[in-house]
Amino acid sequence: MVSDEVRFIFNTFSFLIWGGLVMWMAAGFTMLESGSVRTKNASVICLKNVGLYSVAGIAFYLIGYNLMYVDVGSVIGSVRFLYGPSADEIALLGGNAEAEAAVVANGYSVMSDWFFQMVFVATAASIVSGALAERVKLWSFFAFTLVLTAVIYPVVGAWTWGGGWLSQLGFQDFAGSTIVHGTGGWAALAGLLVVGPRRGKFRKDGTVRATPPSSIPTVTLGVFILWFGWFGFNGGSVLALGSVAEAVSMSNVLVNTNLGGAAGFIAALALSRPILGRVDLLGGLNGALGGLVAITAGPDIVQHPWALVIGAIGGIVCIAAMRLLEQLRVDDVVGAVPAHLFAGVWGTLAVSIAAGGNIGVQLLGVVSVGAFVFVLSWLLWMGLEKTVGVRVSDRVEQLGQDVAELGMEAYPEFVIMPEDDEA
Amino acid sequence: MVSDEVRFIFNTFSFLIWGGLVMWMAAGFTMLESGSVRTKNASVICLKNVGLYSVAGIAFYLIGYNLMYVDVGSVIGSVRFLYGPSADEIALLGGNAEAEAAVVANGYSVMSDWFFQMVFVATAASIVSGALAERVKLWSFFAFTLVLTAVIYPVVGAWTWGGGWLSQLGFQDFAGSTIVHGTGGWAALAGLLVVGPRRGKFRKDGTVRATPPSSIPTVTLGVFILWFGWFGFNGGSVLALGSVAEAVSMSNVLVNTNLGGAAGFIAALALSRPILGRVDLLGGLNGALGGLVAITAGPDIVQHPWALVIGAIGGIVCIAAMRLLEQLRVDDVVGAVPAHLFAGVWGTLAVSIAAGGNIGVQLLGVVSVGAFVFVLSWLLWMGLEKTVGVRVSDRVEQLGQDVAELGMEAYPEFVIMPEDDEA
Amino acid sequence: MVSDEVRFIFNTFSFLIWGGLVMWMAAGFTMLESGSVRTKNASVICLKNVGLYSVAGIAFYLIGYNLMYVDVGSVIGSVRFLYGPSADEIALLGGNAEAEAAVVANGYSVMSDWFFQMVFVATAASIVSGALAERVKLWSFFAFTLVLTAVIYPVVGAWTWGGGWLSQLGFQDFAGSTIVHGTGGWAALAGLLVVGPRRGKFRKDGTVRATPPSSIPTVTLGVFILWFGWFGFNGGSVLALGSVAEAVSMSNVLVNTNLGGAAGFIAALALSRPILGRVDLLGGLNGALGGLVAITAGPDIVQHPWALVIGAIGGIVCIAAMRLLEQLRVDDVVGAVPAHLFAGVWGTLAVSIAAGGNIGVQLLGVVSVGAFVFVLSWLLWMGLEKTVGVRVSDRVEQLGQDVAELGMEAYPEFVIMPEDDEA
Repeated sequence: MVSDEVRFIFNTFSFLIWGGLVMWMAAGFTMLESGSVRTKNASVICLKNVGLYSVAGIAFYLIGYNLMYVDVGSVIGSVRFLYGPSADEIALLGGNAEAEAAVVANGYSVMSDWFFQMVFVATAASIVSGALAERVKLWSFFAFTLVLTAVIYPVVGAWTWGGGWLSQLGFQDFAGSTIVHGTGGWAALAGLLVVGPRRGKFRKDGTVRATPPSSIPTVTLGVFILWFGWFGFNGGSVLALGSVAEAVSMSNVLVNTNLGGAAGFIAALALSRPILGRVDLLGGLNGALGGLVAITAGPDIVQHPWALVIGAIGGIVCIAAMRLLEQLRVDDVVGAVPAHLFAGVWGTLAVSIAAGGNIGVQLLGVVSVGAFVFVLSWLLWMGLEKTVGVRVSDRVEQLGQDVAELGMEAYPEFVIMPEDDEA
Repeated sequence: MVSDEVRFIFNTFSFLIWGGLVMWMAAGFTMLESGSVRTKNASVICLKNVGLYSVAGIAFYLIGYNLMYVDVGSVIGSVRFLYGPSADEIALLGGNAEAEAAVVANGYSVMSDWFFQMVFVATAASIVSGALAERVKLWSFFAFTLVLTAVIYPVVGAWTWGGGWLSQLGFQDFAGSTIVHGTGGWAALAGLLVVGPRRGKFRKDGTVRATPPSSIPTVTLGVFILWFGWFGFNGGSVLALGSVAEAVSMSNVLVNTNLGGAAGFIAALALSRPILGRVDLLGGLNGALGGLVAITAGPDIVQHPWALVIGAIGGIVCIAAMRLLEQLRVDDVVGAVPAHLFAGVWGTLAVSIAAGGNIGVQLLGVVSVGAFVFVLSWLLWMGLEKTVGVRVSDRVEQLGQDVAELGMEAYPEFVIMPEDDEA
Repeated sequence: MVSDEVRFIFNTFSFLIWGGLVMWMAAGFTMLESGSVRTKNASVICLKNVGLYSVAGIAFYLIGYNLMYVDVGSVIGSVRFLYGPSADEIALLGGNAEAEAAVVANGYSVMSDWFFQMVFVATAASIVSGALAERVKLWSFFAFTLVLTAVIYPVVGAWTWGGGWLSQLGFQDFAGSTIVHGTGGWAALAGLLVVGPRRGKFRKDGTVRATPPSSIPTVTLGVFILWFGWFGFNGGSVLALGSVAEAVSMSNVLVNTNLGGAAGFIAALALSRPILGRVDLLGGLNGALGGLVAITAGPDIVQHPWALVIGAIGGIVCIAAMRLLEQLRVDDVVGAVPAHLFAGVWGTLAVSIAAGGNIGVQLLGVVSVGAFVFVLSWLLWMGLEKTVGVRVSDRVEQLGQDVAELGMEAYPEFVIMPEDDEA
């Protein structure tokens, strides 16, 4: 038997440990992105990432969590400021032992759940920074992040995890293939369309200009951090560890997560030659992320062999989408939209294929979340464009944001090759 | 109900998991420092950091823990060598089931607490290496580290966490704004005054020479590692996870920690232009650390909105102190004294402002720890200076410690720009 | 009292948390290796590492685990495909509460153990990639990894942890000084002999050519990741956390692990001047790994002072073996064979010296595992050599695998010094 008190401690500790690991994913995105951009923008992308994590954490504290989880009707939760421990918890910590029963009845400590949800909103915001790297203005990016994490993501969350209309229809998205990765992906895509490609990325003759990443080992480190953090992302999303069944479920989730990532990497690497024209390390790495995103919608209910299939297809979808975006002349610096949005759509649908469930509802979820996030994000990016501007000047872009916006270089003592500027 | 045995396992596991995460902070300091120094000293600073972690771990095993925690009177604990599991624990592991009751009565396993305390002493030592980078001799630094971790830090610890005179007066310092960060900061400041600034850092005309960091992404990685590790640093400092109240407290601690860091980053970045003259990424990053240090004295008892305030002021204190030290011509390479000592003083006082308590006692703690650590450290640095010397020769400093002391470069295959040597 | 259900949750969570940390060691090996190779091969070694982790995870799922743990007789387990949760677990997750008793009787969830064992096989494979860096063909390496992780390692595991003949004789190897590190080391050594040294590494006049590592901070990061991950590697190898005695044991294991690493670093650094001719950072770092490997065979049963002795000797054995291999003209790029094989042999024997036990059985284990792994690996490398080839062409080796095999450079925008090619 597991007593209610022990269950409470397990549930709370699970949120804290796994949540901590999801916070670590913010470092993973930072490494992935600062290794992927050209050297002249490697510092600003670091700044954007630490900044978005900070902004997300505060915005979700001030507004977001209430909107997403408190008294959710069909569409949104509560519009009010700040969030905190329950009165019972405050009483208990103040020495009132009689409050313990009411605290325990909640199943987990109030702020442990807040912490776990907060690191998720930061993940969604991280997706945007990578796609739009190398040309979005610093403060416009932070303004977008503020609205994304205070309002847009929380509303999507209210529809689903908060218990709103999509949840009531039976939409299944265990740890957020659509809710987190789709939201981040759609927000990024809207930004890509408003901001436009990097200067000279697509030449007039239709060819694509190579923009070499500044450091492959740094990109690889980022992917390993993300993979490691994904155990927290998916494992913690069991949302409980207070029963034997929950412990079993968490184990299955971690195994599926790992199989999905591994299959995504191998499939993407193996097919990178036919699809991308070469054995492509960055394609493989992005394929691993695609596999991880794809398995995220249902790692609790799909059987292990299905995790291999879902992950492998997620990896292939990812590199195919990388090629597609290039053909459409959409310039996603790190392949964030392919890995998070495209593979996320696949994963959200796959869960009903692999484990049963209503694929119509899954599709409705994908489309409604997509429409909501894309339209709001597009309006927001356009509003920023019409007012403060979203894009650095040509001169800043050519010099690099590091020197132009920060007055510093990422690796100031190293000799950098002069860029062959054909723009 | 939580049985004593289950409580014992939770408490022990909490020490081990969170302690492991605090060990990881040693990597964070290493990345922060090796990214912050000039390229020619990036290898030696790595060596110093792995070395200090090793020295600290052994010194605390041989001497430090006994001095800090065993039979503490008012000022110091026990002067004797080695530390180990209790006789009851040895009996239990040897198969004597009757010893279990006595083991359980301790509340946690003896060595789990040792492990958690050991990684804290390593943190204090890490603060010193960064401040004094690029000119302190390798072996002199290790000698200082040995005394700091075997004697100086443990004595401060005996006064406080060990139950000595400051603890008896009611000094509040939850996870060590003063005990860990202040101690490291004072020890670093004493070293800065004895060792002096880097060659050519402060020009005769009063201007300050820029010393560009070798890698911004590496610095950023270091800050993320530290932030992540801080969840262990503060979360584990609840020192228990065996009751509902302790689980609630740990949750609040993690949330406050994150809010403090986020507010510190944003405040420091926003004010970096008026205070430092530019939007300053390194100022922002150091401000995040200042916010984390500041919240460390009382994350268990301050309310969440206060965490924002304490963290934000901590970040501002940090960058203001960076400017102050520069004006005083004190050359702290990574801003360790601003982030750890100045923000630590603020945090130690803030806990009594935000949560009640005797600010006089807090001030007494800050001053007495400061006086003790600074004087002893200064004497030690001076003693080293008079005997083996603490500073590398001008020629070594010009060449860089990597080539001169290790015969290697950090990035030997890359072309480095010739330094414009104005010294 | 700890109920069976609570015990089940603790045991399962311990596997998952510590297993996640062992997965993170894959990133440690990657950083260690990509920082150690010359810049022209830094991307391909990243690819090999992400690839080997993916291959190992899938191979162990498809075949390896069954061979190692299911119905083990004396020599091998079960030859069949796939592995998954038990029927009782599936019933429990399906809502059949009556299945819980049978699930609990297993002590931990089936897939949590699989997960923990899977990350171990990946560790063994990581050892091989480093030793053979800079000249082994990508796809031949993956082919070798597939057999190593699907068959060779699992058979060694069946003899020992699976309950086979060596286990029955009383062979002691707590977390795998021989089973994991020895296996990886022997497989690497066989590869080194078949593949041969890098072009120009050993000159005809008997001198050794320096091959500078591309980034010392990256190597250092790798070592810190490995050290951090080792707490999971050894701590999780208690295989349980459901009793007071197990919690005590886990604490002792973490402390011994840390003492072993610290002593290995200090001993190797201190003796690097007499043994290697200079104060050698890479020697010290490898010595830390040697100390960690050496303590891995018995951190649960040796007393803490012995951990210092075993670790220190492990560090010294490691650097002495680095020198020996160089004299034998065996070109191990990262010193993997010294750190994992030589220090692993020492650790496996040391456990019987320090804690009693039959040194003859320990020696038998070392020799039989060595003979089995070395011979099979040598045959496999030779088979690959005779068919697809194991070594890149001279031209590819000179250009670097990054450009030749991937068409990319690790740091494409940086100016690299032209290599002084004396080969």
